[in-house]
Amino acid sequence: MDIITDIASTMLAQLQKPTLSFLIGGMLLAAMGSKFEIPQPVYKFVVILLLLKVGIGAGMSVRDANLAQLVVPAVGAAVVGIAIVLIGARTIARTRGISHMDGMATAGLFGAVSASTLAAGMAVLDSENIAYEGFIGALYPFMDVAALVTAIVLAKLAEARQGAAAVQGGTMTIGGARAGGPTVEGGLVRTILKDTVQSPAISALLLGLALGLFARPETVYASFYEPLFRGLLSILMLIMGMEAWQRLSEMKGVAHAYIAYGLLAPLVHGALGFGAGLIAHEVTGFSAGGTVLLAIMAASSSDISGPPTMRGALPKANPSAYVGTSTGLGTPVAILSIPLWMALADALIGF
Amino acid sequence: MDIITDIASTMLAQLQKPTLSFLIGGMLLAAMGSKFEIPQPVYKFVVILLLLKVGIGAGMSVRDANLAQLVVPAVGAAVVGIAIVLIGARTIARTRGISHMDGMATAGLFGAVSASTLAAGMAVLDSENIAYEGFIGALYPFMDVAALVTAIVLAKLAEARQGAAAVQGGTMTIGGARAGGPTVEGGLVRTILKDTVQSPAISALLLGLALGLFARPETVYASFYEPLFRGLLSILMLIMGMEAWQRLSEMKGVAHAYIAYGLLAPLVHGALGFGAGLIAHEVTGFSAGGTVLLAIMAASSSDISGPPTMRGALPKANPSAYVGTSTGLGTPVAILSIPLWMALADALIGF
Amino acid sequence: MDIITDIASTMLAQLQKPTLSFLIGGMLLAAMGSKFEIPQPVYKFVVILLLLKVGIGAGMSVRDANLAQLVVPAVGAAVVGIAIVLIGARTIARTRGISHMDGMATAGLFGAVSASTLAAGMAVLDSENIAYEGFIGALYPFMDVAALVTAIVLAKLAEARQGAAAVQGGTMTIGGARAGGPTVEGGLVRTILKDTVQSPAISALLLGLALGLFARPETVYASFYEPLFRGLLSILMLIMGMEAWQRLSEMKGVAHAYIAYGLLAPLVHGALGFGAGLIAHEVTGFSAGGTVLLAIMAASSSDISGPPTMRGALPKANPSAYVGTSTGLGTPVAILSIPLWMALADALIGF
Repeated sequence: MDIITDIASTMLAQLQKPTLSFLIGGMLLAAMGSKFEIPQPVYKFVVILLLLKVGIGAGMSVRDANLAQLVVPAVGAAVVGIAIVLIGARTIARTRGISHMDGMATAGLFGAVSASTLAAGMAVLDSENIAYEGFIGALYPFMDVAALVTAIVLAKLAEARQGAAAVQGGTMTIGGARAGGPTVEGGLVRTILKDTVQSPAISALLLGLALGLFARPETVYASFYEPLFRGLLSILMLIMGMEAWQRLSEMKGVAHAYIAYGLLAPLVHGALGFGAGLIAHEVTGFSAGGTVLLAIMAASSSDISGPPTMRGALPKANPSAYVGTSTGLGTPVAILSIPLWMALADALIGF
Repeated sequence: MDIITDIASTMLAQLQKPTLSFLIGGMLLAAMGSKFEIPQPVYKFVVILLLLKVGIGAGMSVRDANLAQLVVPAVGAAVVGIAIVLIGARTIARTRGISHMDGMATAGLFGAVSASTLAAGMAVLDSENIAYEGFIGALYPFMDVAALVTAIVLAKLAEARQGAAAVQGGTMTIGGARAGGPTVEGGLVRTILKDTVQSPAISALLLGLALGLFARPETVYASFYEPLFRGLLSILMLIMGMEAWQRLSEMKGVAHAYIAYGLLAPLVHGALGFGAGLIAHEVTGFSAGGTVLLAIMAASSSDISGPPTMRGALPKANPSAYVGTSTGLGTPVAILSIPLWMALADALIGF
Repeated sequence: MDIITDIASTMLAQLQKPTLSFLIGGMLLAAMGSKFEIPQPVYKFVVILLLLKVGIGAGMSVRDANLAQLVVPAVGAAVVGIAIVLIGARTIARTRGISHMDGMATAGLFGAVSASTLAAGMAVLDSENIAYEGFIGALYPFMDVAALVTAIVLAKLAEARQGAAAVQGGTMTIGGARAGGPTVEGGLVRTILKDTVQSPAISALLLGLALGLFARPETVYASFYEPLFRGLLSILMLIMGMEAWQRLSEMKGVAHAYIAYGLLAPLVHGALGFGAGLIAHEVTGFSAGGTVLLAIMAASSSDISGPPTMRGALPKANPSAYVGTSTGLGTPVAILSIPLWMALADALIGF
């Protein structure tokens, strides 16, 4: 019974946290037909600030890390991030009734990392006096950015292929003039990569990364981007909540698939991360504590960098699918799985 | 002579405070024909943030209060808030030459509460070692929201009736097709209440209240909504000052009515609040200090939650009337009346 | 060799500072064809907030200064600010191939003051235990505002004359009806001064000055305008960088003129400031330390108040010219010249 109470209270605490409570607040506003709205230019600016902040923070943490020690676990983190999205592309994104776009956005968020879940994991290890590498914080952008970019590119690729197929099929009669898309697959990938890099969302993220890596934005980060972050995220969540409500009907009949994915995926992903940690342990002596944290990163799903990125890059994806599944289910399960990875690490490596 | 110097220096200090000085600054800009302007989308967002902040803060203070003890004084506070608006509806809003809308907006602001005046009252009691209930801060939203919503609904109701009358009168010849408004009064009230709740301003306020009551927005409140509040209010005051100047001519000939109301109303309202405190004292043993603070709340007029709410909900009301009267006259008089309520409480209840 | 290393590391440090690194970031975004953009209404609001902050800060520092002692050095500072712009009008703004508007904007920035360079100078004097007047910080708005307004008025005057000349010349055939501009020079100056004062940028600056001087905006300044400043500036720099890149081609062939001006002007201007300090020393006993700081002020070029003012008041001027020259060259040279003014002051006045 205790475990059920634990789960219930963890989920209630998640629901009361700013991220989800503002999302629910936005849904309530939409449900009661409110004329409340965030003006479009402000909304765009909020997304830009959020992505700049995420990028700058990640860039600074990579810059401050010991690059030699970082390489093996960083490659591992990126591979895990990509693998999670590829698994999602073959599971949740292929489920009947779920749009491919929604499925890929959800997989992207599960591949990305929740900084707060990672922080919770660190706090647990600290309280147990279990050591881990100081550069762990610098690993998360590798998994995060790899997962988000993979998901976005795959989603756009599928959309472009679908568009091309539609043109070759039904709408062919319109005439060859409008026949869209390059026929060579390689050209398509290149176009989509270029589009992705040039899109406002990914541009802002990459710009932030570059500034964090090569400049010294510490003062402006600490006085502006960092303090405003949670507040601007709460505004974004309101907007996404209102939109989610308007699109909730799309989820009828497929909700069970999202629930199953939200409950199981963190465990599968965590095991992948744990495996990558084990390999790094064999190759470079990566610590048992670091392995636990890599598992937690992989198990976690993004509640911070992910939603604004997906919103900016894949505007057609339904936020009630991806934010609801990741923040409402993925994050609580990931937090509850922390003791599992600790027990595994103690058994296989030993603290 | 001392009292006159006191009043003059209190009023000068009020004029120099951000709220009024930015309002005057906006008026000066308009007076010199400046092309300065705050873009519309930003202005809308500023109002939304202000109302969310007011709502969240009020919701959290109610949530943290002892609800059992709170009930009687809270009902008293709400009744006083409504009574003040009803008095205003029969005095300032009925004065010849003052538009009903402007009068109701002014009455609403005098019914609403100034958090800084309340804080001044608490500071005075603290310095005299006079005890009061810890939940006092949770009383203010009851008076505040009750007064603001009553004023807005009454103002919209009067406007709708006027519109209907106009249709039935002069413009009747246009034809029955455009004949507006439900004929049954109850339907009209329901429509206006629905419109009010769905309006962006009241939606934001209610959403904030709900988030403060049921979620845990403490971190985002402390890192974002609270620190940005005074600054965003200064921006709103600039906008309202510019608009006030453009509409100042409307106040010619009726300024004396606003002055009389601004000077007398705080004393009448304070007496009402004091009476509610006395009743709560008899019923539940509400303290003498609490009674003084309830009187101060009632005497005070809103300089914070009121202006953005009125601006959002009653855009046709003239800010130079309601902000000028409440912040320029009502607040100084309310502050100066603090010793009066203390003397009364000492005489009637005893500290 | 040491001096070259010093210069190189000073310039690298400048490049990594938020101001220049965000400018470069914006240029990179534009270079890679990003669709990143800051919405227009947000951009306007950012400029307004920056200028309000600059004005309020300057107004408060003048208010807190001892006015009697301030007069002579303040007049000196204003005269130096104007003189620098007039020199620029006859040098950089007259260079073949450089648009007059770009040249005047650059001269205006070199006349304006860099608060951070001034702070660096104060820190050096403090570390050497060299005394200076406490009101030094209040001198900078005099030089700053005098230079910016002079540059803007001269630039607009030249533009208006050019427009009038064009009308009298080639486009005369359109017909007298559209013949533009007052014929009397005095009327033109008055019109331009009025336009300048009423322009959003200068209105915001003057409003801030007035609020700082006559009101008590300390709380809202400390909680809002001051903490947001560097962050909003970084946003402005991004915007200006993107625009600068799009207009970089205009600078081909004239870059050497900007480089020469950026390297030499700070030394000439510093000598002017030093001279003004010497006069104040003779007249009112202004200290040797104060004279050094006045020289540093004059040598410095604005990286803070200047760019948003020029952007708002002279939208046609090319930011890659004026921001690049002042922040990229002027500021490092001004910082490196600090020991020069100290040696001069020691020799001519004695610490």
